[in-house]
Amino acid sequence: MLLSEMSSEQLSEFYENAKKDYEVFKSKGLKLDMSRGKPSVDQLDTAMGLLDAVNSKSDMKDESGADCRNYGALDGIPEAKRLFAQLLQVGEKEVFVAGNSSLNIMYDVIAKNLLFGVDEESEPWIKQGKIKWLCPCPGYDRHFAICESFGIEMINVPMLSDGPDMDMVEKLVSEDDSIKGIWCVPMYSNPTGITFSDEVVKRFAALEPKAKDFRIFWDNAYNIHHLTDTPDVLLNLFDELKKLGKEDMVYMFCSTSKVSFAGAGVAAMASSEKNLAYYKKLATIQTIGYDKVNQLRHVRYFKDLDGLMGQMKKLKVLLKPKFDTVINYLEKELAPYGIGSWHKPNGGYFVSFDAPEGCAKRIAQLCREGGVVLTGAGATFPYGKDPKDSNLRIAPSYPPVEELELAMELFCTSAKIAAAEKILNK
Amino acid sequence: MLLSEMSSEQLSEFYENAKKDYEVFKSKGLKLDMSRGKPSVDQLDTAMGLLDAVNSKSDMKDESGADCRNYGALDGIPEAKRLFAQLLQVGEKEVFVAGNSSLNIMYDVIAKNLLFGVDEESEPWIKQGKIKWLCPCPGYDRHFAICESFGIEMINVPMLSDGPDMDMVEKLVSEDDSIKGIWCVPMYSNPTGITFSDEVVKRFAALEPKAKDFRIFWDNAYNIHHLTDTPDVLLNLFDELKKLGKEDMVYMFCSTSKVSFAGAGVAAMASSEKNLAYYKKLATIQTIGYDKVNQLRHVRYFKDLDGLMGQMKKLKVLLKPKFDTVINYLEKELAPYGIGSWHKPNGGYFVSFDAPEGCAKRIAQLCREGGVVLTGAGATFPYGKDPKDSNLRIAPSYPPVEELELAMELFCTSAKIAAAEKILNK
Repeated sequence: MLLSEMSSEQLSEFYENAKKDYEVFKSKGLKLDMSRGKPSVDQLDTAMGLLDAVNSKSDMKDESGADCRNYGALDGIPEAKRLFAQLLQVGEKEVFVAGNSSLNIMYDVIAKNLLFGVDEESEPWIKQGKIKWLCPCPGYDRHFAICESFGIEMINVPMLSDGPDMDMVEKLVSEDDSIKGIWCVPMYSNPTGITFSDEVVKRFAALEPKAKDFRIFWDNAYNIHHLTDTPDVLLNLFDELKKLGKEDMVYMFCSTSKVSFAGAGVAAMASSEKNLAYYKKLATIQTIGYDKVNQLRHVRYFKDLDGLMGQMKKLKVLLKPKFDTVINYLEKELAPYGIGSWHKPNGGYFVSFDAPEGCAKRIAQLCREGGVVLTGAGATFPYGKDPKDSNLRIAPSYPPVEELELAMELFCTSAKIAAAEKILNK
Repeated sequence: MLLSEMSSEQLSEFYENAKKDYEVFKSKGLKLDMSRGKPSVDQLDTAMGLLDAVNSKSDMKDESGADCRNYGALDGIPEAKRLFAQLLQVGEKEVFVAGNSSLNIMYDVIAKNLLFGVDEESEPWIKQGKIKWLCPCPGYDRHFAICESFGIEMINVPMLSDGPDMDMVEKLVSEDDSIKGIWCVPMYSNPTGITFSDEVVKRFAALEPKAKDFRIFWDNAYNIHHLTDTPDVLLNLFDELKKLGKEDMVYMFCSTSKVSFAGAGVAAMASSEKNLAYYKKLATIQTIGYDKVNQLRHVRYFKDLDGLMGQMKKLKVLLKPKFDTVINYLEKELAPYGIGSWHKPNGGYFVSFDAPEGCAKRIAQLCREGGVVLTGAGATFPYGKDPKDSNLRIAPSYPPVEELELAMELFCTSAKIAAAEKILNK
């Protein structure tokens, strides 16, 4: 029976039962950190062969003949560029292979645009007064943290089932030239798990921003992170932009952080040749180059896109049961009562749970006191402020299934308590 | 006989002979790039064991028990912090272990100071109007390029035999609060090869800058890069600053780029706990962390400072003959004629050659046309402008000795031609 259909006696009984379950659970003394989308030990173990791909007997030359142990090749070794070109579906000249962190490149691109402008002709963003950013939300907290750190004003854009609210995006960027960027995780979005529809991608390509230095930050972090054999398909924004001669409008990002090792992978950016030439001119002041030995290690191990996809299949075997566990608990424990809503993702790293309004913080608090730390309520919105106090990001990857089951038991019990409290005005 | 003592007939003969030698040399068709201080293949080969130090059978936990393959530990794994604390002679809490490039950390520190200020209390440098920087020169071109890129006005400070002209440094920083920093390579300085004296280090510690947000950028890139068994000794600036309670005034940098692999090593920064806490607060927005697997690889391989020193002894065997070659050529070919001056360094990566005034560009041009690319004349000065057109940086590390001998033959012949031309007003 739905909570909304219960009599007040039924609701009180439901509430008291949930509280009893909660106290029993609490006494178990579970301690689990599910705050971040971290790979599990099992996942990391699947990539250990990477560490043998380059060893003391290896030829350390890249395919151009350059020694990967020495300085040079700011934008990456040729074979790494080719691999990331395949991964991002762009040309090799449109790829910049960097260090271990795509977040770091995103941060650096914004910092450089602030200090130097997006190209030779443009004013640095810091010289243009207050600048603003569109933030489809719920979204990725670390994206929002970059804007907040730089004092960039963030505007919430609702995330719909096929991508950001494009009516709103189109209207805002065409009217306000202080809007300089938008964050997107277009495939298996963080946290909602949806993939942008073809129409949304085409509308992105067709944007006519008032600010000539407006840029789309296309963080394609999960583009091969499928959980099913019938994965989502994302239209290639770069191709769509090229058709219109507008490929300067995008920076695309990805990494192997959740393919090989989190923090010891390789990250890359794709953009127009013009944008990359400008970026390289600035980046050559910052560093002589990134870790080419690690690039070589990755290319020797994974070889090509097929190799990467083979690795993703191994990871799917480990991740799928965890996502199933989360969805099963939600469907079994919360759906019958009409508590909250969620999307069953075909890939990515998260399940996004929309609690009844005003319940997210309370659920996170109950979970924390019961021994499970979730991503903080509100974290999926700019400034950590969820206007409806509703969204929670569930990150199933790290704990073993048995622990995840316990965590989901606690989560569902906490959601029941919070939802009942809300109606009972406790 | 010194050039200055030659009759005009003798000088003309000297000049014609040098030109003949040059033409003979040019016909050999040598092609050699000596523009950068790159390790040789032999040097890189000595570190190949590093690549086996972590392999598919390795325990991937650091000594705190954290998995180096996963996210976390923004400032480095504990054992890497300890190693760099030994290397920089500071406490482990005063170390931030980063990625593969100390230049990148220097750039990031300056970018953050520009955008956010040096601490919570200070105004961002970009909000303080024109800011300036002291640049002991000849110095490192990449340091100067950072300032130039950010529009920071550079002030030349003469480099003396025991360090920068401290009378000038003291006067300028005490009078002008727009001066926010100074570049130093305190040991085996790039390019002059000298090491700052104890007195210079003490005067640095005793500086009383008018700008409270003035910082010393202490790039200790060559602190274990000895070429003799009686190496220079550098007084520890951090200790001197601590005695005076002024350790916020310095950022120290180093890396293993010229110990293990150039571009695939590990870099670190040392500063006060206050400065590092502030830096970490900003850096945690930029990245989740640096490559801890590479940190682990380095610590497992080198173990401790003794391990690093053992590696440096292997490198010395390869580098010493090259420095001897350079010095021998200069002493044999140029000293008898009084052409130029130089310092014989006890370590580091360069020999700095001061040509007769107005001759450096001409020498570089003659070398280039003869097949050897040197670091560009002027590069060792801010804005690439050597006021005396005198200094040239010789980088002996990369070519094998036989090639270096040819290069030095060309260099000395070119210096003879340029010096004679100058006197003959050709």
